[in-house]
Amino acid sequence: MASPAMPPVPTLVEIIAAKRDGAPGNPADVARLVAALMSGELADYQMAAWLMAVFFRGLSDPETVAMTEAMLRSGRVLDLSRVRGLKVDKHSTGGVGDKVSVTLAPLVAACGVPVPMVCGRGLGHTGGTVDKLEAIPGFRAQLDAAEFAAIVERVGCCMIGQTAEIAPADKRIYALRDVTATVESIPLIVASILSKKLAEGIDALVLDVKVGRGAFMKEVSAARTLAKALVRVGSRAGKKVVALLTDMEAPLGVAVGNAIETAEALDVLAGGGPPDLVACTLALGAEMLVLGGKAGGVGAARALLAQAIASGRAARVAEQMIEAQGGDPRVVADRRRLAVAEEELVIEAARDGYVDRVDALAIGLAAVAMGAGRSRADQPVDHGVGIYVEKKPGDAVRASEPLARLRVRSGAAALPIAERVREAFAIADTAPPLRPLVLDRIDDRSSTAAPGSG
Amino acid sequence: MASPAMPPVPTLVEIIAAKRDGAPGNPADVARLVAALMSGELADYQMAAWLMAVFFRGLSDPETVAMTEAMLRSGRVLDLSRVRGLKVDKHSTGGVGDKVSVTLAPLVAACGVPVPMVCGRGLGHTGGTVDKLEAIPGFRAQLDAAEFAAIVERVGCCMIGQTAEIAPADKRIYALRDVTATVESIPLIVASILSKKLAEGIDALVLDVKVGRGAFMKEVSAARTLAKALVRVGSRAGKKVVALLTDMEAPLGVAVGNAIETAEALDVLAGGGPPDLVACTLALGAEMLVLGGKAGGVGAARALLAQAIASGRAARVAEQMIEAQGGDPRVVADRRRLAVAEEELVIEAARDGYVDRVDALAIGLAAVAMGAGRSRADQPVDHGVGIYVEKKPGDAVRASEPLARLRVRSGAAALPIAERVREAFAIADTAPPLRPLVLDRIDDRSSTAAPGSG
Repeated sequence: MASPAMPPVPTLVEIIAAKRDGAPGNPADVARLVAALMSGELADYQMAAWLMAVFFRGLSDPETVAMTEAMLRSGRVLDLSRVRGLKVDKHSTGGVGDKVSVTLAPLVAACGVPVPMVCGRGLGHTGGTVDKLEAIPGFRAQLDAAEFAAIVERVGCCMIGQTAEIAPADKRIYALRDVTATVESIPLIVASILSKKLAEGIDALVLDVKVGRGAFMKEVSAARTLAKALVRVGSRAGKKVVALLTDMEAPLGVAVGNAIETAEALDVLAGGGPPDLVACTLALGAEMLVLGGKAGGVGAARALLAQAIASGRAARVAEQMIEAQGGDPRVVADRRRLAVAEEELVIEAARDGYVDRVDALAIGLAAVAMGAGRSRADQPVDHGVGIYVEKKPGDAVRASEPLARLRVRSGAAALPIAERVREAFAIADTAPPLRPLVLDRIDDRSSTAAPGSG
Repeated sequence: MASPAMPPVPTLVEIIAAKRDGAPGNPADVARLVAALMSGELADYQMAAWLMAVFFRGLSDPETVAMTEAMLRSGRVLDLSRVRGLKVDKHSTGGVGDKVSVTLAPLVAACGVPVPMVCGRGLGHTGGTVDKLEAIPGFRAQLDAAEFAAIVERVGCCMIGQTAEIAPADKRIYALRDVTATVESIPLIVASILSKKLAEGIDALVLDVKVGRGAFMKEVSAARTLAKALVRVGSRAGKKVVALLTDMEAPLGVAVGNAIETAEALDVLAGGGPPDLVACTLALGAEMLVLGGKAGGVGAARALLAQAIASGRAARVAEQMIEAQGGDPRVVADRRRLAVAEEELVIEAARDGYVDRVDALAIGLAAVAMGAGRSRADQPVDHGVGIYVEKKPGDAVRASEPLARLRVRSGAAALPIAERVREAFAIADTAPPLRPLVLDRIDDRSSTAAPGSG
């Protein structure tokens, strides 16, 4: 006789079934799944089924915290204990022309708040800070953890690319989500963002949740739901978190590309730059200074930021950081050292009127088509090409005035792309109502009443 | 400049996303996914995500037909064109003590309806016809397609196990569902059952949808939904399909095991057998004769079945089939040739009363624990062990009368199992209301108003 055997009780399958059936979530189960995926006990296809169940059933905040922390613990948490002060980072959900980080890290560091920043690369229509920084001759974004910590300690900020050591479970799960139609889930987005950011060893985080045509979130309501979930879950994970919802209907600033965006970000450090870019940078920077304990409120914080720019201290921190990371620090004072493609194609207005719309998604996709971005993660980028968006929504324009200038390697080859850029502009007889740049602000007091955030 | 490149449009991912979002289903998309899984274009984790999305969103009947046919086409469709007449099979959703097929195939074949039957093996608490047949000395259930067709043509019936050639996509998808908590989906169950059955080259199918403690479907309403979906989708796929809902609160018949179940099934062929087993066999057999065009109605069909038993023709077909498949045909006349374990443990009633309940699930699990079944697909079974359920619901019983007898290899080792069998019986002071054996009948006229089968 065989020994008494009950049917197998496959506990990991039961965890998937419980989520599928909307049972009250158990944070320990979520942590168990993530660990089992990394150990090989749970197969990719089981994680994929669970991710789809989460798409339908959501995760509670405690479950999302557990997932965040399990992904965080799957890799290395950077040790910044030797860096004094509250360490604060900023994360953007991604947009077109969003070069804010390049300005912000040295600017905030110049005000005394250490900024350990792990940045992304561009994918699809949204650009990546690492690509922009790598337009600086010699700049090295792939540093090891010890070098990173040493530069944050010495300079006040350091900006590196994602490493294999940071949250490998997030990398693995994100790759699965990308090919299983499970990207668009608020708790999964929250856990992915926070796991990477919390691995930096930060104390506080300012989130820039982009909203509009060029953003992942097209609608304010969805962006607000995401922002509230990020703040709630980040706070539960023990961090101070504030989120701003900012407009991404049109590209941010004028430049869309790599070298030309870095030049524009350095313009802001030098006291110049397009008004919308300056406004976005100062709004986010002020929140960082308040969270970092350097100002009692955003008004005082803005004054500190303005002084750091006017005094040249912010520019000096940028020079120090670039030099520490192997780059040519002279680009900070002389932005023409950033190599830009020689040929120029000018897109002219067909008629008089007002710019009604500049489609950020179309501009972002045109930049990818030019080679400034990538449609697959393994593609190289051309740092020198890009698009100057000369006219922004609300601007008056006269027939044959330039709407945009493309910096390209070959004008002939770029003609179809120029046509797409032209179509991104809509001209109307009257000026459109101006959208505010900052659409909302969410902190831990305003993050609790989140509809549909499970 | 890079050549113009748009972000990739991953069409298989879009199919997953469309199902996730509840978009109107496209049958061609479903067929594409199944083919892509088998070609390697679609990964297991992508299929798992789609299966979970189907759990939530369902499949339309045309999508379910497409999935059925795609899984069917992934393998070999048996060619029975040389076999004259309408070929009819029966499929049960699985129960405890369900040995109906062993009687039914030769009985229906004896009435002139060819029965090409591909049967399953036991898993978990439900038994499998192949295991029961293999209790016959020498019986070979693994025949190739040509042998199978030749025996159906010559004898009128043949009973074999699942082969790797039949619906391999179903095998692969079922294995995924089993470990991703996506088994419990009506359209996926329907497509799985029908793909295997339609691969037999049949013209019509009678389904025995079991309902109750010992069945996959515990509730009549869920079983009816499944039965209607099976009939609707089978009809759309061009087959004549009828489903009976039959009771599976208590085990069917007396014997639960392999050799003892085969002996009991052969008792029915000889004109004996427990009344509930006889009733179930005749009800299903009558539907098969009507679908096979041998009787105008179930009344006439029952008379034909009774004649085939009384005349000994059914038993002779059984002998011929067993002999053709390498087995000892003498078992049909002399059931003691089926080897049964020698030791017996008797479970006695503790008190006078009426049997209120015999828990089919508990009996089935006890049989697995004895070695008569398997908890994993790769386990062997002991054909000689089993449980005789001597008292059935509604039977009067006196204290110390046998409720059940266990045939075991070692009485001492079986004592804990005997205890579980004892607990499967509930004795009450009054007789319970009798459940009808056949709870409902669904044909293509009664299958249309299926709630929740979208």
